[in-house]
Formats: sequence, structure tokens, C-alpha cells
Amino acid sequence: MLSFANDYSEGAHERILKRLSETNREQLTGYGEDHYCESAGKKICQTCGCPEGQVYFLVGGTQTNAIVIGSLLKRYEGVISAVTGHVNAHEAGAIEYTGHKVLPLPEYQGKMRADDLENYLRKFYEDESHEHMVFPGMVYISHPTEYGTLYSRKELEEICGICRKYEMPLYLDGARLGYGLMSRQTDVTLQDIARYCDVFYIGGTKVGALCGEAVVFPAGNAPKYFMTMVKQQGGMLAKGRLLGIQFDELFTDDLYLQLGRQGIETAERMKEIFRELDYKFYLESPTNQQFLLLEDSEAEALRKKVNFSFWEKPDANHTAVRFATSWATTGEMLEKLGDILRNIKNDKK
Amino acid sequence: MLSFANDYSEGAHERILKRLSETNREQLTGYGEDHYCESAGKKICQTCGCPEGQVYFLVGGTQTNAIVIGSLLKRYEGVISAVTGHVNAHEAGAIEYTGHKVLPLPEYQGKMRADDLENYLRKFYEDESHEHMVFPGMVYISHPTEYGTLYSRKELEEICGICRKYEMPLYLDGARLGYGLMSRQTDVTLQDIARYCDVFYIGGTKVGALCGEAVVFPAGNAPKYFMTMVKQQGGMLAKGRLLGIQFDELFTDDLYLQLGRQGIETAERMKEIFRELDYKFYLESPTNQQFLLLEDSEAEALRKKVNFSFWEKPDANHTAVRFATSWATTGEMLEKLGDILRNIKNDKK
Amino acid sequence: MLSFANDYSEGAHERILKRLSETNREQLTGYGEDHYCESAGKKICQTCGCPEGQVYFLVGGTQTNAIVIGSLLKRYEGVISAVTGHVNAHEAGAIEYTGHKVLPLPEYQGKMRADDLENYLRKFYEDESHEHMVFPGMVYISHPTEYGTLYSRKELEEICGICRKYEMPLYLDGARLGYGLMSRQTDVTLQDIARYCDVFYIGGTKVGALCGEAVVFPAGNAPKYFMTMVKQQGGMLAKGRLLGIQFDELFTDDLYLQLGRQGIETAERMKEIFRELDYKFYLESPTNQQFLLLEDSEAEALRKKVNFSFWEKPDANHTAVRFATSWATTGEMLEKLGDILRNIKNDKK
Amino acid sequence: MLSFANDYSEGAHERILKRLSETNREQLTGYGEDHYCESAGKKICQTCGCPEGQVYFLVGGTQTNAIVIGSLLKRYEGVISAVTGHVNAHEAGAIEYTGHKVLPLPEYQGKMRADDLENYLRKFYEDESHEHMVFPGMVYISHPTEYGTLYSRKELEEICGICRKYEMPLYLDGARLGYGLMSRQTDVTLQDIARYCDVFYIGGTKVGALCGEAVVFPAGNAPKYFMTMVKQQGGMLAKGRLLGIQFDELFTDDLYLQLGRQGIETAERMKEIFRELDYKFYLESPTNQQFLLLEDSEAEALRKKVNFSFWEKPDANHTAVRFATSWATTGEMLEKLGDILRNIKNDKK
Repeated sequence: MLSFANDYSEGAHERILKRLSETNREQLTGYGEDHYCESAGKKICQTCGCPEGQVYFLVGGTQTNAIVIGSLLKRYEGVISAVTGHVNAHEAGAIEYTGHKVLPLPEYQGKMRADDLENYLRKFYEDESHEHMVFPGMVYISHPTEYGTLYSRKELEEICGICRKYEMPLYLDGARLGYGLMSRQTDVTLQDIARYCDVFYIGGTKVGALCGEAVVFPAGNAPKYFMTMVKQQGGMLAKGRLLGIQFDELFTDDLYLQLGRQGIETAERMKEIFRELDYKFYLESPTNQQFLLLEDSEAEALRKKVNFSFWEKPDANHTAVRFATSWATTGEMLEKLGDILRNIKNDKK
Repeated sequence: MLSFANDYSEGAHERILKRLSETNREQLTGYGEDHYCESAGKKICQTCGCPEGQVYFLVGGTQTNAIVIGSLLKRYEGVISAVTGHVNAHEAGAIEYTGHKVLPLPEYQGKMRADDLENYLRKFYEDESHEHMVFPGMVYISHPTEYGTLYSRKELEEICGICRKYEMPLYLDGARLGYGLMSRQTDVTLQDIARYCDVFYIGGTKVGALCGEAVVFPAGNAPKYFMTMVKQQGGMLAKGRLLGIQFDELFTDDLYLQLGRQGIETAERMKEIFRELDYKFYLESPTNQQFLLLEDSEAEALRKKVNFSFWEKPDANHTAVRFATSWATTGEMLEKLGDILRNIKNDKK
Repeated sequence: MLSFANDYSEGAHERILKRLSETNREQLTGYGEDHYCESAGKKICQTCGCPEGQVYFLVGGTQTNAIVIGSLLKRYEGVISAVTGHVNAHEAGAIEYTGHKVLPLPEYQGKMRADDLENYLRKFYEDESHEHMVFPGMVYISHPTEYGTLYSRKELEEICGICRKYEMPLYLDGARLGYGLMSRQTDVTLQDIARYCDVFYIGGTKVGALCGEAVVFPAGNAPKYFMTMVKQQGGMLAKGRLLGIQFDELFTDDLYLQLGRQGIETAERMKEIFRELDYKFYLESPTNQQFLLLEDSEAEALRKKVNFSFWEKPDANHTAVRFATSWATTGEMLEKLGDILRNIKNDKK
Repeated sequence: MLSFANDYSEGAHERILKRLSETNREQLTGYGEDHYCESAGKKICQTCGCPEGQVYFLVGGTQTNAIVIGSLLKRYEGVISAVTGHVNAHEAGAIEYTGHKVLPLPEYQGKMRADDLENYLRKFYEDESHEHMVFPGMVYISHPTEYGTLYSRKELEEICGICRKYEMPLYLDGARLGYGLMSRQTDVTLQDIARYCDVFYIGGTKVGALCGEAVVFPAGNAPKYFMTMVKQQGGMLAKGRLLGIQFDELFTDDLYLQLGRQGIETAERMKEIFRELDYKFYLESPTNQQFLLLEDSEAEALRKKVNFSFWEKPDANHTAVRFATSWATTGEMLEKLGDILRNIKNDKK
């Protein structure tokens, strides 16, 4: 069945598979110390405008979050996140498993507000008993967020300013960064992210790779023995080449951005289809994840024809659902979706 | 300076000190296996109406919470608590240090509501991706709460019912249980607590002991090798007698309840004094912790004459403060407090 | 430079790459719930003779060890391992990071002895204070071991017997299992392993896959919510297909065993070359890892011509080194190695 | 029954109980911030000859070890200990529960040798793959050791020298320090310990206190927010006075050393009694713990008359047992012991 359930339903872009084949019998050093990892890291730093940066390749998003957060925090610190942040809501307690608390702030369509952050920090240090509490040690944001929304450059700048004032690293989860960068409604570039964040990751898994996320420390100040901690948390790959080669290809001739654009263009077309058929959007997302508010019966009927994701139940009679496009979504797939939706509409009449 | 800063400013009730002296040179087995621990455990079970119960003695409240929660939860589970619960707010991340998430629910003057709990659980299991989330594994409530408030028997019964429906233990933090039991506005007895909770602790530190909390498993179903886990978390005392003797005395001739009553009677008298002088209460507490809402300048002036606790700053010009009575508060201390307050009032005029 | 440094220098067997390409645009469910994972699991169970078995696919060896051990142990338990076991020596403390102790036993060329195990367990339970110690909760062995050695079927049976007597799971780390199964000096089959072990993993990374290890619970008794714990430890792959497709191919037409055989045949040929040139073996290994004892100067000279691994320094003048073959080692590579070694020999004269 | 089972069978020295009574109704700040804690800390620093030192009071030994080690180590580091060190053998995995490995070295009657330590460290850094291993992060020694033995000043100096060379803290567990300092066969003073160690603790529980250990950082370089971490690990006492008052008294008029001397003098007298009756010593201990090697039947007979500790079973027919004296052991108790032993001897004839 045709699926818009998520952006990781297919394998990898064919250029990546080709590159894996071409390099297959080359004997390479393990553990990410091969020349493809090195080359990919350099290309990423160049693209991000941070020549002094350090880049490490990890396998998946939850792993990356747990390793970056677990490595940067001091024992008595926690990570601040919007309450809907992936680290707070959908990682099976991976952060807490490393011994750290996630400190939740209110969310606005998945985003954290700078003034909530500042109030939280001010109140924390005002509290005379704050040494009995979890110290805020870093800030986690996702971009795009779990709701597909994006921070503006100004919003990023404000959050960054507060982090610097309180000497806390700002960490950006870019699981879907490619789609964020190519959104028609963003003024944030990869260079902005490298300027405002202390560490971030460029998601591969959801933007054309088989697996892999590239962790970037733009200032080259990764924690000492970072890879030892990666191994300690089970994230080190013997064949680091698998990640290096993929990212080397993704950052050759702008493939990464091309794939992002494909996800955005198909999302925009999908939005039009939904709009034409008077579907109600659950929220306004400028990226590849689109959320609809359906009556439960409508959701049931639709589910028989096309795959999508359950999102949440805002009330007893409605279901919010997610349709995601990706680098692999084609015009043909959208045409089929349009046909399915129109047929349902007609059947209803 | 006269202090109402908390309920642990003094040492122990003199009967306890006397008992420690009388038994001092008796040679006893270590690690809580002495006959005083045994006797204290029996008396507690009898008082609670749970003859099959198991009782373990631990040193302090945060330790007790971390050990009980860390021992009962499965790895992939977290503990549900009101957002203001001590385990969520004031234990420096002790629960997360054991690898577990605290799952916060809304609070109403420190209390959790049964319907919030039920909604949370229903939504969790409704969510198709809940296996990617932290499973709710137990419920934590405090009684009295951090705001001095109390659950009614009916409220306890409802929360207990939901826990049993979802097969999760209900754990009650009774750091100040003596004051809760002796409140003039409660219908909850120790036997009720033993009936509704799967595990709870009777706080000694704040109700007349030098240190010590008695953990009760009313059904006698403590986790296997509980004391090994206590040792693993650093909570085992070589001289377990220190705890056993204290609790044996506290549960002889109702000393524990007498001490609770002393805290309540002095709190009621203190409330009258504040009321007579038109102080504004921040919230209505039926136990030994009383909260006032002061203008900042007023708080500053008062602080020079008597010790109390900063609670929180609800807005830019006001401070909420806490005055606590205890088993050690005397009529004389309250008279002095009255004098101080009246003098300030007069100075103001 | 020609390398025998390890068995993960190349990519994947070409049949695997081909299969990844062929299936690339097929839309599949994520998180290991696709039909390739299912098919691969069934083939593995069939090959192992355990139709009721459960199979889970993880990314790498250290991750697999930490997840399996962390999921099976109770909080107060540790894992018994030979002192040279990978979990004890070379995983950067990944097991301890999950909160568990590795309990080391003596090793004999990497192997644990059944009587050492039995003595350890007997003494543990004899000790009157054993509840103050770490309980032995499971046994970890590697096969082949870190020294390339193998357990005989009788040895496995004995260790298994002790584990069952003490009701502890036996876990076998099969990172290089393919080479162990194809050794000319083994009487242990995959079915034996499934019979004697409670859980084991079939290593893909070192036997022809890009990455991936297949965890098998032959009796189908994996811990409840195992995949939630996998996610909690950062081991869940969004595109689980990457692992499923690879293992499905490895277990089609005996590819896994063929790749193992290639590693063994080239190892045997390599041994002959070394023997012909009077190299001294550091120990006798029947699998794909071969260990030589070199004078330091000799090691230095050799290192300029061919890549191998430093193993250890048994004394001030000697170095033990490892040469590994693999599924990717060719006759041509061995000829080159022979030439290099002969040239060095001649230069010396 | 008369007991020499351990050195924590009685309560506290009477001077301590008296002081607790005298100060009982004084209102004091909680959490170790009262003036008794301050005064005790100053006296300890003065006695140790480290005026810049910092002193923190914790409740028990295992807790202290887990907190000090857990607070000083970086995530990827472990603690080096003799294999018989309390942290390795008898703390139910408390160190591993904090996520850190104990790195065991050989023991010689409970002691670590400087050259073993140096070899270990040299080999670790020589190993090309050491970034895949647990980094040695600190050294733990106990003094007296678990076998009652003592380091000489020269031995301490050597171990200290290696630690400084490798920039690792040296931590000394002084659970029974009072007996070590008063041994007739030691040249190590408290000032020596403060000079050679980066952190150590002065044991109160086994030397006259109800509970309590004083952690000393002689150079005043305790980790930032140490007390927050103490709370996080459940070690913070609301009534910190309980520890402060006890240590203040122990360090008034040399009470601590007097109590140590009482333990040593009674141990020496006990040794004479055993020698006179031709008992065989299991090892030679210069402190308050004495170890005998008994035939199993002999041990059984003795156990009916007097309490002692099982130590270990060196072979099938013998049992090693421990008799401990303490600050509370009296001449009368030793006379009774002599009578019991002589009676057994006579019965045997």
C-alpha cells in the first residue's frame, strides 16, 4: 500500500548505493578513521562555514541525542527541552538512562520560546535551594520540530544569546534538517545553525541515507575522548566507512540539499491536494510533515487506502494524523494519493 | 535567632535520646538485623493493621525515594508524580540518576488528580507508538504534599483504584506523615494508607527522630534482595540499631502521633497569630507547613527578626514564604513569634 | 597498503549490496518490523533448529552486548566473563555504563573453564555475606574468543549445565561466529549453540555485512519490551530493513557459512606461509585470527610493508601481533603477503 | 552472646551521646551547614595539617565510596583498586551502579603494590587501542585494608608518586583509620595521609560514632557542587548536625585517637590470648581485625560460645575467621574470651 507514514520508508538515494558499491573492496581503517569520514567531515565543515569544526558520524537519532547529551552534561545537570521535544517524549527514556533529567518547557507547535527559557533560568538561580535541584546544563531544540515547524533566524539568535549568557551549550537536533533548510518559509541557513549552535546534527537517516547522522561541533570543541564515550554508549561502528561514504556523497554536488528540496516540493504539492479537497490542517507546517485533523470515521476509511501515521487524539471524535513526504516521494505517488482522496470524497457524497 | 524555617532544626525527642543511651553498650547484629529493628517493624505493622507487612529502615527521604523507586521500576518504566512532587523538583535528579524518568502530571496545591492520572494512562496505551516511550511503572504521591495539603480518603481510594486497574504500585512519601495523620482536617488514617498503598514510608527525620524513615510494604511483597539494592545505592547502615531503636521508641505509647499532634497544635496556634495580624495566606494548608504571601519589603524586614523559608516568587513584588512548626515547637516560641510580628506591625504604622 | 589488520576492512559481500539495491525503493515499515526482518529471523531460526526462537537485529557488537546484558540482568546482578572477554576488556566500560559489574574469571587462551565457574558460584553462595556482593546473574562467553580459540561441544555443554543448575542465562558472543563454525577443528554447530545457550548473537559485521548482529533467543523467551530497551539504549534503527535485508541474504543459500569458510581457508593458507618461514606463533588458533610473536625490531620492519594489529607486549623485547583473514581475503592477497615476508627474510640474511 | 564479630556492634562513645543531648534543642541550619559541622571540619583540617582543606560529612562507608568515586571520575574512567578492595568486593556493585568500572589489581594481604600499579598504567597507555578501554581515572586504597594490614609511609609515598605522575587522584578509604593510626607497627600519621592523598575519609562508624564518615579534600579542591551530587546519590542528611556534632566531639581532646588506641590495645591482648593457646593466625594483622585459621569442626564448636565472623574457606577442611576488637572492647570481655577458649581447649583433651 502507498505510504506517507514517514520519511524513512525507502532505502537510500541511488547515488549513495552506487558509491558504496564502488568503494566496497577498498581496505579501510575502522571506527570512523578512514579517509571517507575525513573527507565527509571536511565537506560538511566547509558547507557550514566552520573550518575548525569537528564532525563525528553516528548511526541514528536517539543514539545521537543520548550520546551528545550524555557527553556534554555534568552529572548534576539536565537538558532543557520543549515538552514535546523528541528527547522528552519519544526516546523511551534514553536520556534518563544516561542518568540525566530532561527539564521540560512549554511548547508552541513544538517550539520553545526564548522568554520561557530565560524565565526558567532566572527563577532557577533565584531559588535559594537551587543546589538541591537539577542544574540546567544545556538546551535542546529540534529544527524542524516534531511538528514540522521551524525556528526563525531571530528566534534562534535569541535562544543562542540566552545560552551564551548562562554559559550553556545549545544543541540542535537536525533529524530532518534537509527539509528545514529547503523550506520555502525559512530564513535559516546551515551557516546560521553553525553560528548559533554549539553542537548540532545533520540527519541522514531521514534525508536519503540508509542510516547515519553527522554530529558537528562548529568550534572544534568536542568533549575529550568523545569517541570513547560513543563506544561506551554502544554507538561506535567498526565499519565507520558505512557512514563516511554516505555523508561524503550527500555533501558532494549538494545532494543533501537536493534531497531536502524534493521532500519540500512534494510536501507543497501534497498540501495543495489536501486543500483542494477541503481537508482541515491540524497545524501549519512549512516542512515535509503535514498534519490533518480528521473525524475518526474518516481516518478509519482513509487508513484502508493509504498508509499514514496516527499523531494524537485531541478529543473523543477526532484524530490528528501525519502525512510525510521525503526525498523519495515522487509525483506519481502524489497523483495516486490525489486519486485515493478524491474517490473517498466521491464515495461519501 | 528564633526559627520556623523548617521541621528539622532540632535534634530528636528526648525519649529517643534516652533510649539510645540505655541500649548503647548492648552488642547487636549490624545492617538492620537486630532485635530493635524487628520489634519496631512489628509495632509499625500492628499500628498500620498489616500484620504481614515488611518494614525496612532507611536514613533520609531522598535516599528512600530513590531506593524504593529504583527497586520497583522495570528498566523501561518511569514514575508518575505531580509536577511539584519532591522526586520531580527537589532531589537533584536522584531518580534520574537511577536511570528512570519522572513523568509529571499537573498539580493542584501539590496534589495529583485521579482523572488526570487516568487520562494520562489511557492516552499512553492508546498511542500506537507507546513502545517508543517511557512506560508508566508506578505512581508517587506525597502526603502531606510539598504544599502541606492532604489527600482525602476518597481521593486516595480513587488513585489507588486506577493504580490497581493498571497494575502499577502506588507509593506514598510520608516524610511528614505524622503531621498529616494528626491534622484536624483529615479523614485518612495510617490503616487507610496501608490499605491503599503498595509501599509507603513513615518519616522520622521530620517527626522527632535524629534521622530515619520506615519503609512499609503492607502486603509483605518487597522486591527480592531489597537490602542488597539498598546497599548498592549506599543506603545500608552498619549500625542499623540507630534506626531500629528510634522507630521502636516512636511506636511505643503512640509517641509518633503525639509528636505529630504537637506540630499540628502549634501550627494551628501560629495560623491564628498570622490571621489576627491580617497576614495573607498563600494557600490553605491543614498541616504543619504554613505559607504566607508577603510584599518583598515585608519579607526583608521579617527576615531580620525570625528565620523562615523562601518558597517562591509569584510575581515581581511578592514573595511566598514558609513557616513550619514541628514536634519541637513550643508555646514559648509562638509567643516570641507573636511579639516579633506585632512589633513589626507597630513599627510600620 | 595490504592489510590483515582485522576482519572489517572491506564493505559487504556483493550479494548483499545487490539485494540492498534491488529492494531500495520498496516502502517498508520501520524499526525492524518489515518483512525482510521477519524472513531473516525465520531463516535463522530454521538454520539454528529453534523454530520457536526470536531474532532481533542490532547494529554492532558492543551495542549488542550492552543491550542483551543490560536487559537480562536484575539490578543487583553482574555478568560473569573470562577476564579477557570483550565485555570486560575492550568495550570502554559499556556494561558498567548500564550499571552492572563484570565478574571476571581466569582465562585460558581466552576461554573460561567450567570448574572455575562452578567454584566461583559455590563460593559465592557459601559466603555468609553474599547479599552484600554482586550476584552472578548470567554468563558471557565469546566463540571464537578474543584469541581466536573455540570451545568444544563438551566444554559448552559443561558450562551450560552449570548455568542451568544455578538458573542463570548463558550468553554467547558470536561476533566471529561464521569463522568458528567453519573451523577445521570444531565439533560445535549452530544447532548446538542454540541448544546450549539462552541467548547468542550471530555476527554480521565481521562476516560479510556492512553492519549488523542477529540476536537469537532460541526458546523465544526474550525479555518483555525488549525493543523498548533497545531504543532506550540507542540501538533501534529507523530503517531496520538495512539489517533485515542483509541477514536475509546471509541466510539464503548458506552465504553466511560460505563467507566463514573463505575466512578459514585463507587463514589456513596464511598459517602455512608463516610456518614455512619459521615464524613463531604466539598461540594456536583454529580460526581466522592468527597471532605471531615477533621481536620488536622485526615487528617494526614488517609494519612498513603490511598492515596488522598490535596485540600485546609479553616482555620488553617482543611484540605479539595479530593477522586476521576474512570473507574478503583472496588468494592474491596471500600471495602478496608471502612475497613481502620472503623479501624481509632475504633482506635479513 | 559475647561478640567479636565486628567493630560496629555497640552504639557510640558516651561522650558523643552526651554531646548530642546537650545540643539537642539548639535550632540549627540543615544539610551540614550548621556551626558544629563547621567546627568539626576545622578541627579535622587542623589535626591533618591541611588548613585549606574541605571536609564533608557522610553517613556510611559504601555511600562515601560511591559518592567520592562517582563525583571524581569522568564518565569514561574507572577506579583502580586491589582486587580485595571493599569497592570491588563488598559493596553490592555500588560503584558500577554509578556507571563506573572498578579496575582490579593483584592484592598482597589486601594491599596494592606500587609496581603493579605502574605496570598497569604503562601498559594501558602503550596499548594502541586504549581509547576502546576504560581509562584509569583514580586509585582507591583502604588503610587499614580489608585484611587489617597497613601501608608503610614509603609505600604510600610511592603510590602517591605514580598517581601524581599520571595525574590521577589518590583516594584512601579510612573506614578503620583510627585503628590504623594507633597501630604499634605503623609509621603513617594523619598528616602523612593528608599529604599523600587527594581525598580520604576518616571513619566514624567503626571508631566510636553512631554513624558518619568525614571526607577530607586536603587541598580544598572538592568537585564543584559536591553537595548537589551527594544529594543526587541520596547521601544528604537533613539533620547534618547529627554528623557534625559527633565529629566535633571525636576531634575534641583527641577522643578519636583514644578510641583507636583502645581498639589496638585490646587487639594486642587478644592476639596474646590466641598465641598462648596455640591458635594459628591466618595472616599477620597489626590492627583491630585478627584472622585465625581453624579446622571446620573447631570453628563450629567455637561458634556456639562466642560470636565472630566467617571470613573465607581456603580449603575443604578449614575456615578462616575474623575476630575484631574496637573502641568498645573491654578487658572484661577479653577475660571472658580467654575463659571460653581455654574451656574449649580443655574439653578437647
